[in-house]
Amino acid sequence: MELSEIYAPVQQDLNRVRDTLRSISRIEYTWLAEQLSYLVKETGKGIRPALTLLSGRSYNYNLDYLLPMAVSVELMHTATLVHDDAIDKALKRRGQATINSIWGNEIAVLMGDYLFAKAGEFVAETQTPRVIKLFSQTLGTISSGEINQFRGAFNLNQTREDYFRRIYGKTASLFSLATQSGAILAQAPEPAVASLKEYGDNLGIAFQIVDDILDFTSTEEALGKPVGSDLTQGTLTLPSMLLIERYGDDNPVKKIFRTHSQKNLAEAIQMVLNSSIIPDCYKIASEYCEKACRNLDSILDTASRRALYGLAEYVSRQGT
Amino acid sequence: MELSEIYAPVQQDLNRVRDTLRSISRIEYTWLAEQLSYLVKETGKGIRPALTLLSGRSYNYNLDYLLPMAVSVELMHTATLVHDDAIDKALKRRGQATINSIWGNEIAVLMGDYLFAKAGEFVAETQTPRVIKLFSQTLGTISSGEINQFRGAFNLNQTREDYFRRIYGKTASLFSLATQSGAILAQAPEPAVASLKEYGDNLGIAFQIVDDILDFTSTEEALGKPVGSDLTQGTLTLPSMLLIERYGDDNPVKKIFRTHSQKNLAEAIQMVLNSSIIPDCYKIASEYCEKACRNLDSILDTASRRALYGLAEYVSRQGT
Repeated sequence: MELSEIYAPVQQDLNRVRDTLRSISRIEYTWLAEQLSYLVKETGKGIRPALTLLSGRSYNYNLDYLLPMAVSVELMHTATLVHDDAIDKALKRRGQATINSIWGNEIAVLMGDYLFAKAGEFVAETQTPRVIKLFSQTLGTISSGEINQFRGAFNLNQTREDYFRRIYGKTASLFSLATQSGAILAQAPEPAVASLKEYGDNLGIAFQIVDDILDFTSTEEALGKPVGSDLTQGTLTLPSMLLIERYGDDNPVKKIFRTHSQKNLAEAIQMVLNSSIIPDCYKIASEYCEKACRNLDSILDTASRRALYGLAEYVSRQGT
Repeated sequence: MELSEIYAPVQQDLNRVRDTLRSISRIEYTWLAEQLSYLVKETGKGIRPALTLLSGRSYNYNLDYLLPMAVSVELMHTATLVHDDAIDKALKRRGQATINSIWGNEIAVLMGDYLFAKAGEFVAETQTPRVIKLFSQTLGTISSGEINQFRGAFNLNQTREDYFRRIYGKTASLFSLATQSGAILAQAPEPAVASLKEYGDNLGIAFQIVDDILDFTSTEEALGKPVGSDLTQGTLTLPSMLLIERYGDDNPVKKIFRTHSQKNLAEAIQMVLNSSIIPDCYKIASEYCEKACRNLDSILDTASRRALYGLAEYVSRQGT
């Protein structure tokens, strides 16, 4: 299944999400309006809002609550990207220059804050304190996770457990906010809410593993940013962890981390590509996708459940 | 009236607010816990949480809602200060080294995000969508206001209207969130909610004018940061605007803004102090305090209303 087919049960409403995202740039301050419109014109694949809508689709599909929630998760995602790019001093994202690279770090920090505020306004429209609390907790998980990632940069002494905790924080927590809130707002029974939450957790972990794989296997054009960015920023991901596990002391990743230099970047990428590391990482990602699919067993068999299956399968084969 | 007397009707509950603020540093990540405890140990005068509690005190004083709200406004305030200091590269705040000066800008950005998240969790505990929406709108007002301040730095072409809009955004909007939410959560009648909102607006404007005066008249020890910081950062405040209005072209503020140098800082401060500018600024601040007091006319005559009067009077004479 391709994304267009997966999104079909909610495509019309996803268009409304996109239009609403664009509408936030219609504000009084001309200058800020320009930056916002720059930010929201390229909104990626929209997986997170799709998760919210698809999770609600099998139940009481009340768009008065589900639409603002879907907008809110995408805005929170965009806000964290703007801050991450400022922190990483990244130059490109989704193929276009980052806010920090054009207008400076100060504007990027404030713009991210403004987007958090907008995300908060939309989540308030759900009128559902339980979901609003989850929203704030998720932001806390993401930012404390980012603090740990930043503190752990260029640190070779990290376990796989550290890695999984980190990607849960930075990615899976928002995926499961998206699914769980969709289920809650559609008044799904509690066991279904719990299952959809776990689906989001597992899909998010798989998504981030594949994202970390693509940082080695993809092209700058497809990624929208330079290949090998994770290593350049000192972030140890599953492929580089496996490389260290398998190729002892004389290892280019260790050299990159010790010298903070990119000199050995091409060598590290080549060693990963020449080994069985990439298929091994895909295998681990697929296991999480399969877990995600099993989480759907108790969900009503509807078009949207089939779409969520399709999405897990789609994530597991990205880049293959 | 001194602060201790003003706070008396809610002092016990303000202590609980302080204890709750301190408790947020009791978290899993040891390192983050340390930074948070550094941040919340020195919490300033606590005017914002006091405003929430005092505004609710005349009505249905339900601490289940008012306490988390008071914690939330203080956390939002702290988060914006952490981001502001990172943006301004400020070294000192409340007499102690800033987060950015100790741990770097990256940590300061993420720490601010974490505090916004915590503020969001507390406001969610009020279970009141109207207040949660106001909370998010206020964060939007503050951050878009900060964007404008940053963009307007070292710009001499600013009107008094620009100044009042700016200080409404950066200070008064949070004061009126504090008062308005206190009134709403205590189920005050709508006219009282509106009056307390306006009280917050007017008190906040006065508070910021006096804060801007103190940047000229106070000492580094009392301010907890260097004197003249606003001019150093290119922020035009009421005293420096009046200096430009009154002393034509050969003006030290213009020189500071044109050269981005601090060479003329002492001269600018001295010129302000030798003129009638400071008393004139106090007069304007007092007018806002008087407006704030008039906003209380329709409020039930209780100990907490008298405290809010006292607070307006306290603000107007700070530094005199």
